[in-house]
Order: sequence, then structure tokens, then C-alpha cells
Amino acid sequence: MKTEIIKVKTSAHTQMTDITRDVQAAVSKSGITDGICLVFTPHTTAAITINEDADPDVVRDFTKEINKIVPWEDDYLHMEGNSAAHLKSSMIGASEQIIVEDGKLLLGTWQGIYFCEYDGPRNREVWVKII
Amino acid sequence: MKTEIIKVKTSAHTQMTDITRDVQAAVSKSGITDGICLVFTPHTTAAITINEDADPDVVRDFTKEINKIVPWEDDYLHMEGNSAAHLKSSMIGASEQIIVEDGKLLLGTWQGIYFCEYDGPRNREVWVKII
Amino acid sequence: MKTEIIKVKTSAHTQMTDITRDVQAAVSKSGITDGICLVFTPHTTAAITINEDADPDVVRDFTKEINKIVPWEDDYLHMEGNSAAHLKSSMIGASEQIIVEDGKLLLGTWQGIYFCEYDGPRNREVWVKII
Repeated sequence: MKTEIIKVKTSAHTQMTDITRDVQAAVSKSGITDGICLVFTPHTTAAITINEDADPDVVRDFTKEINKIVPWEDDYLHMEGNSAAHLKSSMIGASEQIIVEDGKLLLGTWQGIYFCEYDGPRNREVWVKII
Repeated sequence: MKTEIIKVKTSAHTQMTDITRDVQAAVSKSGITDGICLVFTPHTTAAITINEDADPDVVRDFTKEINKIVPWEDDYLHMEGNSAAHLKSSMIGASEQIIVEDGKLLLGTWQGIYFCEYDGPRNREVWVKII
Repeated sequence: MKTEIIKVKTSAHTQMTDITRDVQAAVSKSGITDGICLVFTPHTTAAITINEDADPDVVRDFTKEINKIVPWEDDYLHMEGNSAAHLKSSMIGASEQIIVEDGKLLLGTWQGIYFCEYDGPRNREVWVKII
């Protein structure tokens, strides 16, 4: 299969967008029923993670706390001024892998797949490959 | 192969459990001798990581320090009160991938695979898939 | 294909080394044109990450800030004294996965693959497997 591209338009500086349905759609489109799905973002100030998709307060707390751990201002040298976003990108990670069985993503009851924006708002991409 | 399920019973609030032998057993059971092994936890307040399995003080220091970086109490909104566990889950990550050669997990001399509990004690699962 | 080994000689205590070309060389050598490439380090005081490879200040800020978040001295028990390196290893992670298409690593415009040293200088290895 070709790599499937998901477009994500973020509207805030730090934001988590649930992309579980889009990833499942890419899996269904591929016709692959059994394997592993790689969800990868090609951006260096964003990340992919898996976390709870039930209570929106989880995402609010997550975002607030990670911004506290990696402060936006801290005598950084990088002229663009977004070094904190680069570090958060690597701390959370550029990709996730999910098992595919019977054509479905095998996720826990409370798990959703999130695109994490750390220097928005921007137009972003997520690449999906199933093997 | 079907996804193999490893059961982990944790006994503390924050705890790292070495599951290397269980993962190797799943690899051996699969009969696959060459590929990549995905070790995935379906929980949003737990994680999978690879780290030293020689000196137990490494795990003690690891646990103490991550609890200091992401404090349990910090004016979180999430009613369940375990937002810190959700953030630690994403910082450490829901999965690890290990090369399989000649039916064996290819790990470094000091590496072991750990299930990380961040909101225990609980009965947990780890899913293993080899491709 | 057999696992390809990349040798990395680090020269500082904390250091990020761009290994993108070495990983691409391993992909080219494998002859595999379509799949997923696993880049894995067998060390417990090092990590693999993907981040910007344009402005070297990004790496300088990254290194300085992560050393501030996980301080080298903090009443650790581990006799070797490198517990901070172990935690950073798990926070950044032992591996990355990259899509391979037409024999090329599919990376974003600004992305490079880095070996992260957290307890150097040392002679290190990176293992590459493509499936």
C-alpha cells in the first residue's frame, strides 16, 4: 500500500487532536486485515501519542502540565524561538504503532490516537503505513 | 499469528515490572524467527519501556525522579485525579519495538523490557505482536 | 535482511549525533524498497530521536533543557551515578520507526534521525532493521 496522508488543521498554539477515526479509515482503505499500523508525523514541533479519549479534561491537564515542564521561554538560542516545541516533540515522540486485527485498530477501551501540536496554529500532516 | 496477551498484576502505585521473559516466551510461541516484535499496553495510565535490568536502584531512581518531574498534585481538572499518570504514560510511551533474530529478542547486554505502572495497583495487560 | 550495525563514537557527556545518512545507507544496502525501518539503540543511557537537522541551536537548546528537567545530581541511589541518563533514555526512547518508499526513508523536510548520548563519551551502536 501507498502511505496514506491525513491532514490536520490546528487552531491553537498547543493542542491535541483526536485522529483515531482518520487512522481507522486509512486502515480500512488499505484492505490490510492483519499487521501493524505506523502513525508518523513529519513535523519537528509536533508529535503523535495514545491517551484517554473519554474526558476532555485529561487533554487539558496534559497540555498545561507539559508546558510547565518544558517552559516556552528559557534563554533558548534557536532564533525561531520554538525550542520548547522541538523538545516536546521528541519527549512525546514522532510516531505510534498499533496492532491491526480483522481490519480494526486494536486499542484499549479508553485509548485514542492524538496528533499533538506544539507550535500552532498550522496546517499539518500525519502519515499512515500498514504492514 | 494472533496477538499474545501477557497479564501483569501490579502491587504499588508507581512500579516497573520486568516482562522480558514473558515477551521472549510470546516470541518463541509464535514460531517466528526473524522480524520485529511490538510490545504494546492498552492502558492510558501505564507505559512500556526498555532500560537496565541489572541494578534495581536504577528502577527506584527512575520512578522517584519521574514522579518529581510530573507531580501527582498540580491543580489538575480531571475528576479521577490521575492526570499525572496519563502524562507519564505518553512521556514514556505505550509501546516498544524489538528486533527478532533466530527466534530471540535482540536486546543490548543490560536491556530489559519493563511494564510501567503509574496508577496502581491494578490488573493490567500487555499485547505482543510479531511480524 | 540481517540487522545492520552503525557505529557511533561520541565525544561529550550529552550529545546528539545526526545519523540520517548512515540509516539511509543501511536501507539502500538492504535492497528493500518498501516497508518500515526500525532504528534501535541497545544502550540504556542513550536514545534515538527524530528532530530538526537545520539549525544546530535546536540541538543545543534540546540538550541544555533536558539536562535541566532531569538533573544529573538528585540523591540517586544507583552506584554508577548515571540514573539521570537512564531516565532520559526512556523519556526520549530506544527506537524510531520510519516509512521506506522507493528505497528512501520518508522524512519531513526538516527531520533528521539522531543518536542521543546521555553518558558519554563512549563507543556506541545503533541497530537498523527493515521489514
